[in-house]
Amino acid sequence: MIVGTEIRLAARPLGAPRVSDFEVATTPVREPADGEILVKNLLLSVDPALRPRMNDSSPYAGAIAIGEAIPAPAIGIVLQSKSSRFREGDHVFGMFGWRSHAVAAAEQARRIDPSLAPLPKWMSLLGLSSFAAYVGICIIAKPLAGETVVVSAAAGATGAVAGQLARIAGARAVGIAGGADKCAQVVKRFGLDACVDYKAPDFEAQLDRACPGGIDVDFENVGGRVFDAVFTRMNVGGRIAICGLVSEYSSAEGFARGPSLWPAVYKSLHIEGYRASRYFDRIPEFIEKALLWSQAGRLVQYEHVTEGIANAPAAFIEMLSGKHFGKAMVAA
Amino acid sequence: MIVGTEIRLAARPLGAPRVSDFEVATTPVREPADGEILVKNLLLSVDPALRPRMNDSSPYAGAIAIGEAIPAPAIGIVLQSKSSRFREGDHVFGMFGWRSHAVAAAEQARRIDPSLAPLPKWMSLLGLSSFAAYVGICIIAKPLAGETVVVSAAAGATGAVAGQLARIAGARAVGIAGGADKCAQVVKRFGLDACVDYKAPDFEAQLDRACPGGIDVDFENVGGRVFDAVFTRMNVGGRIAICGLVSEYSSAEGFARGPSLWPAVYKSLHIEGYRASRYFDRIPEFIEKALLWSQAGRLVQYEHVTEGIANAPAAFIEMLSGKHFGKAMVAA
Repeated sequence: MIVGTEIRLAARPLGAPRVSDFEVATTPVREPADGEILVKNLLLSVDPALRPRMNDSSPYAGAIAIGEAIPAPAIGIVLQSKSSRFREGDHVFGMFGWRSHAVAAAEQARRIDPSLAPLPKWMSLLGLSSFAAYVGICIIAKPLAGETVVVSAAAGATGAVAGQLARIAGARAVGIAGGADKCAQVVKRFGLDACVDYKAPDFEAQLDRACPGGIDVDFENVGGRVFDAVFTRMNVGGRIAICGLVSEYSSAEGFARGPSLWPAVYKSLHIEGYRASRYFDRIPEFIEKALLWSQAGRLVQYEHVTEGIANAPAAFIEMLSGKHFGKAMVAA
Repeated sequence: MIVGTEIRLAARPLGAPRVSDFEVATTPVREPADGEILVKNLLLSVDPALRPRMNDSSPYAGAIAIGEAIPAPAIGIVLQSKSSRFREGDHVFGMFGWRSHAVAAAEQARRIDPSLAPLPKWMSLLGLSSFAAYVGICIIAKPLAGETVVVSAAAGATGAVAGQLARIAGARAVGIAGGADKCAQVVKRFGLDACVDYKAPDFEAQLDRACPGGIDVDFENVGGRVFDAVFTRMNVGGRIAICGLVSEYSSAEGFARGPSLWPAVYKSLHIEGYRASRYFDRIPEFIEKALLWSQAGRLVQYEHVTEGIANAPAAFIEMLSGKHFGKAMVAA
C-alpha cells in the first residue's frame, strides 16, 4: 500500500492566503478500480483561478471544501492501469490535484507525448493556462489584423500567451503589468508591442499613449480599476473576453461592482466571460497550433518551478503576489 | 417657400424631462438639392432611446445639441424628389426628426408600402422599436426551444415584441413590467408565459417563481436593480442582449455601476450591448418575417398615437413615465 502526500485546504483565506490556510497531509492511496489509473504526479499546476474557489461556497460553483485536497491540473506517470486506454509508464495530464499520487478515471486523463516537448512545456506552453488564452483570443475575441488588443496581467502565464496570440493574428498587442521591470520583460521576452505599468501614477496616460486609436479587444484577467481604465477606452464593436478578475479574488470586500454597462450599448460591445473547461474539445487543435507556432519562434513560454509538494502553498501565495515570471508549477 | 414646424431641444433635462426642455419652432424649409427629397412627415416616432442623447455630450456618441431638432425616425410622404429613387407621393421611412417637413438624402430614406400594412403599423410592428427586439433576440441572444427568456420593460414597444419573438423561437418568455395591470396586459395581449411586477415588494420572489430553472436569456432594456435581480439568476452559458437601460436615463446621478462581472466568468455569460443601427442591412429580412408572423397571428403590436407635432414633448414625457401601452408616436 502506498502512502501519499496531499495538500488540503485547512481554512478559507481572508484576503491574501497564508501558508496556515493549507495543511500537508499523508493519506493511504487506494487501488485503482476497473477503468481507473493510479498516477504518480510529477508536476502540479499553480493557478490564480484556484483562489476564488477557496472562498465561501454559496455563490460560486466549484468551491473547494475545507479538508479537500486542492483540485488542480497535474502531469504524472501511470503506475498502474485498469483501463485499456493507458499503460504503465504513460505520461498523462489531468485534474489530479496537489497530491503525490492520484487515482483517476482513465477517461478524465489525457496522454501527453514527452518526445514532442519536455514535461514542463506540457504544463506551461501547452497547458491549460495557455489554452485559456487561446479560448479568449482565438475563439471568443478574434482580433483582426491591425486592431489594438490590450492584455491585462500580461506577465502572467495566461496573459503572456494571450498577447502573443494577438500578435500572431496580426493585431497590435499592448500589455498591462505591475512595475517597470515586468513591463520591460513583457516587451523583451514575449514580444508585445508595448506594456503599460498599472502601478505607475501616470497609468492612464501611459495607456492613452499606447492605444492612440482606442482599444478593439480586451483580454481581461485583472478587473478592478485596471479594467475600468480599459473599458472606458473600448472602441465601437469592441470585444472583451473575461478570463478572470485576479485583482478581486483576495479582496476582503469580495467582488466589487463593475462599470456601468451603458457604454456596452452605445458602443455595441461584446463582453464574454468564460471557463476554458467548456472548450476542452478544442485542446487537440490548440496543441497542434501551439507546437507549430513554438517551432516557428512565434510563441514562447517560461516556467517557474518550485521543488517539493509541501511548498505548493508558498508557491501559490508568491504567484498571487506577482513575484513569479512564467507559468508557476511545483515539481512533486 | 414652405414654413415648417420642428421640436428642438431647448435645455438638457435634469432627471425626468419637462415640457420646458423643448421648444416648438417654425423654420423655413429649404429646397431639396440633387439626390435629396422633400418629405412631409405624417408620423413621428417617440422612443426612450432619445433620452440619453439629451444628456451632456461628452461621454456619449450622438448627443443632441441644444437648439437641434430632435432626431427621430418618422414616416412621411414625398412632396418633391430630386432623386431617381423616389417619386412624389411615395411613402418613406427615415430619420426625418420631429419636424413637419424634412429635406433628406434619398439614400437615407426607405420606401414603405402602405398596401402591405397601414402606416402606424410601419412605425410599430414593422418599425425600429420592433427591429431592435429582432436584433437582440434573433441575431444576438438566439434563444433555443425550451429555454427561459426574461424581457424587461415587457409592456414597452420593444420588450413586447422581444417576448413574442422568444416565444416564436420556442422559448418560455417571462416579462418584467411595472404594476399588476401592466403585467396582466403583457400576458393577455402579447401572450407571454408570465409577467413579474418589479414594483411589487415581492418582486424577486415572483421572479424566482416565474423562472424555476433560472434564466437562459435576458433581453435587457431597464438596468438598475431590475437588471441586478435578473443577472443573479442567469444560468451557465446564458446570453444577455442589452438594448437599453431605461431606468437610468433620467437618473440625476447618471449611470450607476453595474454588477460585478465575476458571475460572467464562472457562468460563461455572453453579454452584448448593441445599437440596432449597426444591423440595418437586416431590416428587409425582418420586415418579411414580421409580416408573416403577423399574418399567422403570432406577432402583434399596438399603437399609442398622440395628435399634433406640438404635443411630441408631452408624449415623450408620458412614455418615459410608463403611461403608454403600445408603440408611442405622434401624428404630425
